[in-house]
This record gives sequence, C-alpha cells and structure tokens, in this order.
Amino acid sequence: MKTYLDCIPCFLDQALRASRLASTDECIQWSTLKLVLQKLATMPLTMTPPEVAQAVYELVYTTTANADPYAELKHYSNRLALALYPSLKETIAASENPLLTACKLAISGNSIDFGPQAQYGDLDTVVASALGSSVAINHFERFRQAMQRATRVLYLGDNAGEILFDRVLIEQLNFHFQADITYVVRDRPIINDATMEDAVFVGLTDIVNVVSNGSGAPGTVLNQCSAQLQQLYKSSDVIIAKGQGNFESLSGESKRIFYFLKAKCSLVSKQLKVKLGDLILLDTVKNH
Amino acid sequence: MKTYLDCIPCFLDQALRASRLASTDECIQWSTLKLVLQKLATMPLTMTPPEVAQAVYELVYTTTANADPYAELKHYSNRLALALYPSLKETIAASENPLLTACKLAISGNSIDFGPQAQYGDLDTVVASALGSSVAINHFERFRQAMQRATRVLYLGDNAGEILFDRVLIEQLNFHFQADITYVVRDRPIINDATMEDAVFVGLTDIVNVVSNGSGAPGTVLNQCSAQLQQLYKSSDVIIAKGQGNFESLSGESKRIFYFLKAKCSLVSKQLKVKLGDLILLDTVKNH
Repeated sequence: MKTYLDCIPCFLDQALRASRLASTDECIQWSTLKLVLQKLATMPLTMTPPEVAQAVYELVYTTTANADPYAELKHYSNRLALALYPSLKETIAASENPLLTACKLAISGNSIDFGPQAQYGDLDTVVASALGSSVAINHFERFRQAMQRATRVLYLGDNAGEILFDRVLIEQLNFHFQADITYVVRDRPIINDATMEDAVFVGLTDIVNVVSNGSGAPGTVLNQCSAQLQQLYKSSDVIIAKGQGNFESLSGESKRIFYFLKAKCSLVSKQLKVKLGDLILLDTVKNH
Repeated sequence: MKTYLDCIPCFLDQALRASRLASTDECIQWSTLKLVLQKLATMPLTMTPPEVAQAVYELVYTTTANADPYAELKHYSNRLALALYPSLKETIAASENPLLTACKLAISGNSIDFGPQAQYGDLDTVVASALGSSVAINHFERFRQAMQRATRVLYLGDNAGEILFDRVLIEQLNFHFQADITYVVRDRPIINDATMEDAVFVGLTDIVNVVSNGSGAPGTVLNQCSAQLQQLYKSSDVIIAKGQGNFESLSGESKRIFYFLKAKCSLVSKQLKVKLGDLILLDTVKNH
C-alpha cells in the first residue's frame, strides 16, 4: 500500500506523540518535529506507510537520544494482557468454536497499537466488544482449510501486549493442526511493536519457534528482512500477518496471506471497504 | 496565544484540505504539502496560530495558483445563513431577552468555520443546539453594561455565513444602544473568513459602517492592520471579537475585549478552561 497524502499529518501526530514520550523537554520535542517536517518533505509517496513511519520514528529516537520511548507502554501492555490469559483460555474452552474464538481474540489484540492512535482503552472492554462483534471480512473457513493442508506456517507478529493474544491463538493452532509454526518479531524497538523480549515475556518462546525478521520497520518490509526470514516467507504454505503495519507493507504481494487485523485508520478501512474499528480475517487469495 | 506543538499536525491537516479545494491534481497537492512541511520547520512558535496559518494558507494559494479556494464554500455559507434570517429574527422577537438571544445566535454562527474543522454540520441544528445550550463563560451582563456606556464600538468579524448572525446581533445592538459601531472584515480571502464582499452580500453594509482591517491574516494581527484600523482599535470603548482566530491573535492584549466564540479546538478550550464546543462570551477585564 502506498503512502497517501492523508498519512502526512498523521505521521506528524505520531512524531509528536513519540517525541513527548521520548523527552519531556519541549525544545527537544520541537527540534525533533522540525527535522521530521523536513524529512517528510523528501519522502516519496511510493514508499509504504511502514517504511515512512520507520524513517520518522528512527529520526525521533536519534534526535531525542531515546532508542525505545515505548518501552514502558510495551511492558504495561504485556502485563495487562498476561493478566487476562486465564480468562482468555476459559473463554476459548467454553466457546462453541474454540478456534474461531481464538482467531477473534487474536484480532481483538490488535487494538493494542500506539501508532495510529494515542490509546486503546480498557482491555477487558476491547476483548468483550470483539467477542460480541461479527468479523467484517471473515475468511475463517478458508483459513481453517489452509491450516489443515499446511506444513509450514509463518506468523508475523505485530505489537507488544497483542503478542499474548497471538500465543493464545498459536496454542489453538498447535492443538488443531500439524503444521510447523514460526513466529516473527521485529528486530529492534519501533513504536510498540513486539520484539524478542516481548515474546519471551509472554511465554511465546516456550511454545513456538520465534525469530527476528532482521528489520526495524513497523511492518514486514521484505527487502529489509534477513535472508532467513525471506527464505521462511518463500517456503511457508500459510502466512498469518497481524495488524495494519504488516498489511500496509505486504498488501500487493503475490503470496497467499491471511491478514488478521483491526481497521484502525480511515485509509486502511477504505482500502478494505470496511468501517473504522471493524475486525478483519482476510484471505488474499480468491476462490479457495 | 502562542503556537503549540499540537498546532503543527493541525496546520498540515488544514493545508491538505485547502490544497484539495484549490486543486484536483494530486501532484500539485503533494508539491504544496512539501512546501508547507518545509515552511513549518522555519516558523517560530512565538508567532500566534493565525500568523502561522496565514503563512501556510498563502503558500497553498500561491503554489496551487488559486487565490480563493474557499470562495464557493463562503457563498454557500452566506446563502444558507441568509435563508435563516427570517427565522432568526422571529426567534429573537419571541424570546424573553432578545439581546441575550441575539448574542447566543452570534456565537452559534461561529460554528461556520473551515479552519480547525472540515465541516460544520446542519445549520438549523447548530442554531437550535446553541439556543438550547447555556453559555459556558457568560459575561453577558458586563457586556450589556459596557455597551450602555460605550460611544464607539469595534466589531471584529470572523467568517462568511457567520457574518449574517453578526448582522442580526448588530440590529439588536443598534436598537438597544446609542454607540457608533464599526464592523471589520479581513482585507482579502483567507480560509472562509469574511471580506467586504460577504458584508455586502448579507446586507451588513446597509446597517453599519464596514471597514477592511488591511490584513490577510485569519485573525486580527494588529501590526499588520491598517493605520485606520489601529486608530479605531485604540479609540473604541468596546471591542467585540468574534471567533478563535481573533481570540488567538488578540489574547494577551491589554485592551478590554469581549470575545464571542465557540471553542472548536482542544488548545483553545484548554486555555479557556471550557469543554470543546462550548459557547463563550468572555470579558477580558475582571471586576467590572
């Protein structure tokens, strides 16, 4: 997905929020914002939003000399999500279709995103609302069939906190299917995206193979990814891509990808022809 | 009022909306936005928001070669407001306190603003909602007393459309008080701010002396104003300043000013300690 003109003011908003998290000094915040303004004026709109966002956030991190301003928010989200783990498991166990419920929970976890939004509200409410909602684009049955046939699955993670919801889904996938799953995290801190540290914290490394993608983009920018990741991408039968960042960076790829996300920005919801806030489980391959 | 960091993404939003009104060519819109990005990086935050906005909009107008992209919206707002004129007069005539009602209507007319917002909704609803609301900061009684003692009144207008609501208030002021009123418009098109053309269109020039302030800022930047306007400003007993732009550019001035506005941005509402959307009739002089 290309970058739209509407993304530009949004990037400025994001840069301001990140600068304020990274430094309490208003002079530093303004110097940072000025560099971001100049930088944005040089970015081609043919880049995907995660590529532009990466440049913007890296500039903020360098200028404020803070390599991980979202560290505290990430820990907080992980702790909140972990505290929900027993009740999520109970919900799944009590549900008519545990796999579908786990998918909906994994999508609802994508609410935990500090990129396009400043906050995500109360997590209990987010979960309850997702469980009570229908999925606007719902290719669950195709996903289930693809998983049944799959040998290798690549699961592209998105955010801290959300990663616990991914663990819950992966536990279900491991129970229902034979496929070998590899979970992918970002190589280094970018916004509140999950890195290896988060995977360890929520216990994901205990149940699945977790690898870094080798890139610091808030998405999956393939030409930035490690050779290992590119090889895994090519050889996997099913790719699960969580969140807007992965959607924005991979949409248009020929590979079959199942996108699990919540539409949190008007451009993404317009592209997917859904309403803002809708839950999405999208198979990119038609006629399966 | 100084420019805040939060104003920067908002100016970008405004520049994008104005560019899209000024040109349908996305390449021109993006070239314009790039120049605005570069320009904003050079603006000192000690400038008032209307001064920065003036620089931003003038850049948009020059780059898109469109000197008045809001022309159509201004005409539309004037026509809508003029169509309401008979019912506004009836509402005032039927009310217990016609002067207070006319003040509330004049404040409600300040909803017609394309700067901080993309649209203002249905005008009937805006008016009904204003009449049904209490005024959050209500110095009406002080205003009435000041008007009773006043000889010269300067009425600083704000937007097209809104100017018809100003006419309705001025008709009441002329009926109740002896003061000589001068109404002020912007010198040339800027956003949807009212110019002489709008004053003529809504019949304001038939009932009051109307002058240009000599400036193209979306506010009253005194050092940009004509000598005549500066003289009128000094010699007037009462100044009525409509809207956020006039508030942002004049707040901090020692002169006694009555601000009539609707708080339409979070920074202005924070500065005034009111809620977003609140109606304000503020006397800047305490203890009167």
